Amino acid sequence: MHNPIKKVAIVGGTHGNELTGIYLINKFQKTPELVERESFETHLLHANKKAIDQCRRYIDSDLNRKFDVDALKDDDLYDYEELAAKQLNRILGPKGSDEAQMDFIVDLHTTTSNMGLSIVIGTDSALAWQAAAYLKEKNPQVHIFRWEGDTDHSPFVDSIAKHGFAIEVGAVPQGVLRADLFFGTEKLIQHLLDFFEKFNRGEHKVPYGELEIYDSVRLVDFPRDQDGEIAAMVHPYLQDNDYSPVEKGDPLFVAMDGREIAYQGEEKLYALFINEAAYYEKGFAMCLAKKRTLELALFDPGL
Amino acid sequence: MHNPIKKVAIVGGTHGNELTGIYLINKFQKTPELVERESFETHLLHANKKAIDQCRRYIDSDLNRKFDVDALKDDDLYDYEELAAKQLNRILGPKGSDEAQMDFIVDLHTTTSNMGLSIVIGTDSALAWQAAAYLKEKNPQVHIFRWEGDTDHSPFVDSIAKHGFAIEVGAVPQGVLRADLFFGTEKLIQHLLDFFEKFNRGEHKVPYGELEIYDSVRLVDFPRDQDGEIAAMVHPYLQDNDYSPVEKGDPLFVAMDGREIAYQGEEKLYALFINEAAYYEKGFAMCLAKKRTLELALFDPGL
Repeated sequence: MHNPIKKVAIVGGTHGNELTGIYLINKFQKTPELVERESFETHLLHANKKAIDQCRRYIDSDLNRKFDVDALKDDDLYDYEELAAKQLNRILGPKGSDEAQMDFIVDLHTTTSNMGLSIVIGTDSALAWQAAAYLKEKNPQVHIFRWEGDTDHSPFVDSIAKHGFAIEVGAVPQGVLRADLFFGTEKLIQHLLDFFEKFNRGEHKVPYGELEIYDSVRLVDFPRDQDGEIAAMVHPYLQDNDYSPVEKGDPLFVAMDGREIAYQGEEKLYALFINEAAYYEKGFAMCLAKKRTLELALFDPGL
Repeated sequence: MHNPIKKVAIVGGTHGNELTGIYLINKFQKTPELVERESFETHLLHANKKAIDQCRRYIDSDLNRKFDVDALKDDDLYDYEELAAKQLNRILGPKGSDEAQMDFIVDLHTTTSNMGLSIVIGTDSALAWQAAAYLKEKNPQVHIFRWEGDTDHSPFVDSIAKHGFAIEVGAVPQGVLRADLFFGTEKLIQHLLDFFEKFNRGEHKVPYGELEIYDSVRLVDFPRDQDGEIAAMVHPYLQDNDYSPVEKGDPLFVAMDGREIAYQGEEKLYALFINEAAYYEKGFAMCLAKKRTLELALFDPGL
């Protein structure tokens, strides 16, 4: 037997210029029956309201990098998002506690990269992985990307709960609503809530054994000049082609003068988060990942 | 005989998160021989440096709405961009004067709409129209969009000079560089400078007589609810399909619940600037235009 899921949070607007999640929360707040299920409560939340009001990613710094357990306890961290993170932890957490108020958090994001419908997952929660596998079964177009790191030190909103992940959809510019991605994300949320309902009723009896995923290997920065300025752009060969393979000699970048810069690694990897606007300041142009089949753990006995 | 073009300004970064123009100016500043010609001077300028530093469209308000001749003289207008506009007018203008320092201004923009390579022109300068026609001859993919209004009260940077227009390219998200649009814009600039060189040498002997253009008819806002909130999204039928025809009954929007909202006009028009991020706050979702063949004036005798 498993402990049931009792409280699920759907979070939008962690980044204030990613409109899909913001408007989905608006929709669900007006028509809550869409996200109500019999066996658990669904909570709806806009995470960074001030940034939403200004249609900016953040006010002072990136909220979705603030949820390391140590940072949440650090009173010397007091910029706007550092305070907002502590408030979210109070509302949804506390993180790392068996008393955390939410059992599962799904955090809704968009990206300017052509990531389609992706799940970004950084937890080792067996339940979260089973949920991701369920979504991929329902929609085989879904991609699953495992981010590096452990749960305690995960910087992400969804790490406040024991179980969770982010849904990341694109390509869509910051500050833009796209109908296809809005409805695509909504459909995934419906499947996710259905999964919890089945899980609570014991109807999800045969856990998934394996799953095709992309495992983050490393981040690749733009080529830069001696002043640190970007000196080359993502090559048209890769632009809009997230999740495509990259092998030795394939072009990664094109310099402003047209010169091509190729991938020199020996290992075949896959490129994703290609040319995401918000990552220019973080210093990466794409992420390289390994495609592999993950053996899924069975449910934790103490779930 | 025509007066020659003596000074041309290429302006980037009027909006600080439109990277194509910003990085093209960087490139030309490092390799000025690319934009030098024998018969005129080329000036390079970043228009809104503070917004560029912050990768935001603007600091206080939209710089590219500040160049009405009356606004430029109004000392009661003093937000950041209102001051920046006056400085630009001092450097490039004064607007409306025969002594304006620049003869031609080309202002480089990007859009999240799929506008391809477009020229946005609001002047009645015969020279500017001939230049636009030349670019379309060199690249038939170029679209020419005439914005409403007269030159004196034009709010645009390019209206500081007697002749000018904007190059508007997309789709590209704010804060993103796309190689294809970077090189496409650069090529148009090369053609434009070549045109001035031919014009000055008297080699552009046969002016163009007519030109296919899109003439702005009206702006269409998003459907909104009683609180003024956006209640429907651009329909997938139109999304990414700028310059496509819209006829009675064609879907324009889809509400959050999936209901479709169709075009009710009797007149066949063409949609452009569809779902541009920066226009959400201005209250329009697209522009509708008439496609027509414009009879071009011959050069003004006093040019």
